[in-house]
Amino acid sequence: MQLENTLADLRARRPAGLARAISIVENGRSGFEQLLTAIHPSTGRARRIGLTGPPGAGKSTLAHQLTAAYRAQGLTVAVVAVDPTSPFTGGALLGDRIRMEPVSLDEGVFIRSMATRGSLGGLATSTREVCDVLDAAGFDRLLIETVGVGQSELDVATMADSTVLVLVPESGDGIQALKSGVMEIADLFVVNKADRPGAEKLQHEIDVTLGFRRGNAFRRLRAHHGVRLDGAEGKRERGPGEPGSASPAAWEPPVLLAAASRGEGTGPIVEGLDRHFAWLTASGQLAERRRRRLTRRTQDVVRRAVDRWMWRESQVRTIIDERLDDMVAGRVSPYDVAADVVAGLREGVRA
Amino acid sequence: MQLENTLADLRARRPAGLARAISIVENGRSGFEQLLTAIHPSTGRARRIGLTGPPGAGKSTLAHQLTAAYRAQGLTVAVVAVDPTSPFTGGALLGDRIRMEPVSLDEGVFIRSMATRGSLGGLATSTREVCDVLDAAGFDRLLIETVGVGQSELDVATMADSTVLVLVPESGDGIQALKSGVMEIADLFVVNKADRPGAEKLQHEIDVTLGFRRGNAFRRLRAHHGVRLDGAEGKRERGPGEPGSASPAAWEPPVLLAAASRGEGTGPIVEGLDRHFAWLTASGQLAERRRRRLTRRTQDVVRRAVDRWMWRESQVRTIIDERLDDMVAGRVSPYDVAADVVAGLREGVRA
Repeated sequence: MQLENTLADLRARRPAGLARAISIVENGRSGFEQLLTAIHPSTGRARRIGLTGPPGAGKSTLAHQLTAAYRAQGLTVAVVAVDPTSPFTGGALLGDRIRMEPVSLDEGVFIRSMATRGSLGGLATSTREVCDVLDAAGFDRLLIETVGVGQSELDVATMADSTVLVLVPESGDGIQALKSGVMEIADLFVVNKADRPGAEKLQHEIDVTLGFRRGNAFRRLRAHHGVRLDGAEGKRERGPGEPGSASPAAWEPPVLLAAASRGEGTGPIVEGLDRHFAWLTASGQLAERRRRRLTRRTQDVVRRAVDRWMWRESQVRTIIDERLDDMVAGRVSPYDVAADVVAGLREGVRA
Repeated sequence: MQLENTLADLRARRPAGLARAISIVENGRSGFEQLLTAIHPSTGRARRIGLTGPPGAGKSTLAHQLTAAYRAQGLTVAVVAVDPTSPFTGGALLGDRIRMEPVSLDEGVFIRSMATRGSLGGLATSTREVCDVLDAAGFDRLLIETVGVGQSELDVATMADSTVLVLVPESGDGIQALKSGVMEIADLFVVNKADRPGAEKLQHEIDVTLGFRRGNAFRRLRAHHGVRLDGAEGKRERGPGEPGSASPAAWEPPVLLAAASRGEGTGPIVEGLDRHFAWLTASGQLAERRRRRLTRRTQDVVRRAVDRWMWRESQVRTIIDERLDDMVAGRVSPYDVAADVVAGLREGVRA
């Protein structure tokens, strides 16, 4: 009955009902599995767009600009900001968080901060579930923003249909990102704060690195140096911000310049995301990505359910307690106990 | 046989053997459980000291100073630096990491960086295991240093006998730490970079907050303002850096000033840690903390073993694969699958 009410509120996108549903899911409150099971058939409509990058890259500002652009197209937008809280800074990891009041008064916009102090793993799972709720509520676009610390920028790529990597010139983060392999996750690069020196240089570096990755390093290197290899001055073969290929065969991530705080460069990003989505659909990658996502998602849900069963219902706690004195005395190790528990599960006894 | 060799090398504290044993444990390589089981009876000798605090607080410098001080007492020291790597900054979260070559040429010192990109949870577990290896190898003191981001400063408290919270004036981190409840984990406060303005102010703030916590806020407030409540100028009742009580009844965390980069203030920290350890022993808290630690540790080991069994040996993967099409079609939800898996475990069938 209560579930029915929550579902009705959700489908009507009533803000209070939405907030209640999210809160049930986020806190794993009684009935959250039933709620998520009930909405499962209604998910899969929203396009999920991940925004990641180092602190201070302007992800929130960009999220704000994208929201305004989608609203201008008549689309509804939900923004989920994943912000692993530092107990020292009180959540300032997303230091560039801006006030989003101007759009948040709009019924077609919903903003949720997932500022949970605790393990990133658990945060990723509940973020996915909150995204499902927003998807089922009928939002056309989900923007999932994460600060690029630890695992989170990799997690966002497993949540989104398209992932935007936001970098800024002069911070050195760009080069690090190129080295670290985090590039792999980006479907679209945005060099933000492009009014600062070094923006085009960073854009070129990304472009060259992408070229190396695709094995046509020769052409890219030439392009990068702006010279032909016979020594004559040449025109760069691929200008900054030119669209990547949208053929079903391969997606070439575009590298776009933007100055989100001035509202510059948002149009091409929206357009790049539309082309990426068209490519995902045409190439069959969308279905493939969503299957993979659902598999990983189910693994997480199973893992959590088993964990909960193990510590709340099974006899594992008792087994550990019973052997604690032996462990303290050094006669038994934690690994002996773990082996016994697994043996028990294997045989379907005790546990 | 190979295990025997590794154990012999470990007990002789041969650096190569030590590095090999740690690498086996850190990477969960074949035989790591046997190794940890074999060393389990030899653990429990080392005193484990956690150092935590915000980035830039000077934890590494302090670790360096403490290492030198313990070496001067003829004690051996292992330093484990837990540094959750950011793919953007390439591990610079511990931005104040200093070169420790001067001490690292000393055979009585071993330094290990746990710079693992990935989940903090897994990192915490393998850090505990590496500490066990170093404990079994006979090091007298283990210094466990973590950068204060996310969960890590709370994890360190569950790894250590004594936890030192390092703060610096003027950063605002101090106040945040006081608000966030991270104070609870500290057995000793160090206000580092005490040559900077605001050090004594921060020390007082910590002191007052500790007083509130203990319920004698009245006395503390007076002490803080340096006035008697009748309005006359009074002498502060407890000066900065004065030792907290070492009675078995309660431990009052001392709040010490230091300037680790100049080597100032290390002596009182070493002495404070000795007093804390004496209190832990006398009060029975040491045995209690170590029992709790072993319980949590065993839970982690069991969790990991069950997880590994579930995904490598059991039929859970197959169950998920078989139902993926139904999930994609919305006929079955991940929560249905999870419920079936748990039901299977409960009955000891299928899984």
